Amino acid sequence: MSAIRLAPSAERVPYSRIRELAEIAMTMDGVLKLYFGESNLPTPQFIKDAAAQALADGHTFYTSNAGYPSLRRAIAEKYRELHGVELDTEEIVVTASGVQALNAGIRCVLDPGDEAIVLTPAWPNASAIVTMCSATPREIPLCLAGDRYVIDFAAVESAIGPQTRLLVYTSPSNPLGWTTTGQDQERLLDLCRRRGLWLMADEVYERLYYGGPVAPSILRRCTRDDAVMVPQSFSKSYCMTGWRLGWLVARRDLARQAAQLNEFIVSHAPAMTQKAGEIALRDGETGVAEMVARLRENRDYALSVLRQVPGATVPCPDGAFYLFPRIDGLRDSFEFCRRLLVQKRVGLAPGVAFGAGGEGSIRICYAADRTVLGPAMERLADFLRARPAC
Amino acid sequence: MSAIRLAPSAERVPYSRIRELAEIAMTMDGVLKLYFGESNLPTPQFIKDAAAQALADGHTFYTSNAGYPSLRRAIAEKYRELHGVELDTEEIVVTASGVQALNAGIRCVLDPGDEAIVLTPAWPNASAIVTMCSATPREIPLCLAGDRYVIDFAAVESAIGPQTRLLVYTSPSNPLGWTTTGQDQERLLDLCRRRGLWLMADEVYERLYYGGPVAPSILRRCTRDDAVMVPQSFSKSYCMTGWRLGWLVARRDLARQAAQLNEFIVSHAPAMTQKAGEIALRDGETGVAEMVARLRENRDYALSVLRQVPGATVPCPDGAFYLFPRIDGLRDSFEFCRRLLVQKRVGLAPGVAFGAGGEGSIRICYAADRTVLGPAMERLADFLRARPAC
Repeated sequence: MSAIRLAPSAERVPYSRIRELAEIAMTMDGVLKLYFGESNLPTPQFIKDAAAQALADGHTFYTSNAGYPSLRRAIAEKYRELHGVELDTEEIVVTASGVQALNAGIRCVLDPGDEAIVLTPAWPNASAIVTMCSATPREIPLCLAGDRYVIDFAAVESAIGPQTRLLVYTSPSNPLGWTTTGQDQERLLDLCRRRGLWLMADEVYERLYYGGPVAPSILRRCTRDDAVMVPQSFSKSYCMTGWRLGWLVARRDLARQAAQLNEFIVSHAPAMTQKAGEIALRDGETGVAEMVARLRENRDYALSVLRQVPGATVPCPDGAFYLFPRIDGLRDSFEFCRRLLVQKRVGLAPGVAFGAGGEGSIRICYAADRTVLGPAMERLADFLRARPAC
Repeated sequence: MSAIRLAPSAERVPYSRIRELAEIAMTMDGVLKLYFGESNLPTPQFIKDAAAQALADGHTFYTSNAGYPSLRRAIAEKYRELHGVELDTEEIVVTASGVQALNAGIRCVLDPGDEAIVLTPAWPNASAIVTMCSATPREIPLCLAGDRYVIDFAAVESAIGPQTRLLVYTSPSNPLGWTTTGQDQERLLDLCRRRGLWLMADEVYERLYYGGPVAPSILRRCTRDDAVMVPQSFSKSYCMTGWRLGWLVARRDLARQAAQLNEFIVSHAPAMTQKAGEIALRDGETGVAEMVARLRENRDYALSVLRQVPGATVPCPDGAFYLFPRIDGLRDSFEFCRRLLVQKRVGLAPGVAFGAGGEGSIRICYAADRTVLGPAMERLADFLRARPAC
């Protein structure tokens, strides 16, 4: 191979340790897979029908970089319905997935050498995107106070330096299931206003919430002039992971810049998936409610199994579809998950994949059929009971 | 609005002047639109059927970051068939559009402060992506020698500095229709090997070629160890612009890194569009041949009109679906196109949008129905004949 190399700044972007574990699993048969953040349910038929109809109707051409105006209006309408928030379509950019919303939004605010605060444990992609921008993530772990996670505001404040431009958090949290309180949101907004930071609230799990029909958005509390952005996705709410469709709500100037950058990232989300997204928003409420009821049963079942195992500590989550138990004495969660995979054929995500505060825990995605979740939880419980130190 | 600003490095990414003109056109009625690089033909029915079937078959879940193995195998098979080139699937990454292949590929090789040579006039996205990477594009225009464009190798050599990492060219060219000769390819490869540069050959128009069934790929001439990458797209060959599906062929280490970065850009192309892409590759040959025959007629027609107008110089293109006439005395192609739009309701792309060497020309996309192309060319000819200096 020639001596011409890749860019060090690209090589520094860390590979997902969840994907790394999944790759081992993909070489094996009969694995009960709970490592990805994906429901086992296929996309509802009415959404698939909408995509087929969009193709028949000729939606096979370029759309604008910000997405079809009709979809942007449907998203604005959904915020009015769910959150009582009035958005202008100019504040909404359709993206080709939730992660693409994170990517475009973060790229709009970070220069090389900048820093971003990321509240962790968290899905690794926000920190990785900060690194892709040749900027530096500063991860501040949430703390377990009694049976609830809390933001360590003092640690956040002291991590903010002259190069800090952005604070990212996820609520409902992947992997914790923790959800911000109204007081958390006010304090985060106050802090970001005071310290001159952009605030990114990843709310892609807002519909998977056990305290009501939707987790209250930060958009209810901020003004349209606040330096706030909210990535969203169709993946979790409508079982559309494979479709790669999402959006970004942001202050008008950022939304405009993100749409411009879209031209050079992916141009726009596919035309026919955008049309399907419109129908998902319009007709998806019954499906969301049924899915959340099923997820609540799964959550309660998985919690009940874990609580019979000594040495596993796990608060009851407010939202999302994960449990993230802390395992007493666990120092190498990747090795734990690797052994669990090889010995018991159960695939979980190692806590170390979720950044600062993640090591020592494992992530279970309970959005699985009970015929998978049941034996997986039993094998995990057996493994924990018999566990050697690792 | 708060004082918290966007990142200067994001604001520096220039907006497409084609999109800028299109936005004016979208406020008007009855415009004959030839400004985008998009055929007027909808996607063939068998490809739409394949997508509907993929949805019915349950392709609604995550795929791997590099795309379905079956699609990567189909792409490798197509290179064997068209170019006699043997590729390993590890050298192929499926992307969510041609531009996403450019984006991931360029990001893999540029650090902030690096430089890239871009042969122009060219679709602006390569230079814009270089800027998005906080690197600097150095645009070197092709020169018109008689009735053919040629690469100014001396200018390229002298533009290469210690920070230069990459040379990008497009063949068949958007907007020129110019296609590299075998000798061009050998000289470009030699230059890049000698000067230690990555070579990106954007070949998305390879099937729209008037000299044979496919424009010969650089992959025929380089080894699998050369620092070469080729972005590709389903958009132009199969009338799939709105689907956002493409791929990148690259040296194994770059392909691996690009797949990893995909995780943080868009994760993967939608599952059902990937399956449709497989069928397009398998069953699309008749459609490609028919489309190219029709494009050749349109090219010859549009050329014949232009050649009757004094003051317009345009070589006969080898490929793609554009004419890029140089207009005598034209100094502001955006203003020319704006006036043509307002006065004649014909939408063209201004040459200035295509970087160094583009000003003074206009781009006509002739992939239009003759009922649109005919009157558009006549109005353009009238406008040119009556043109005041501008």
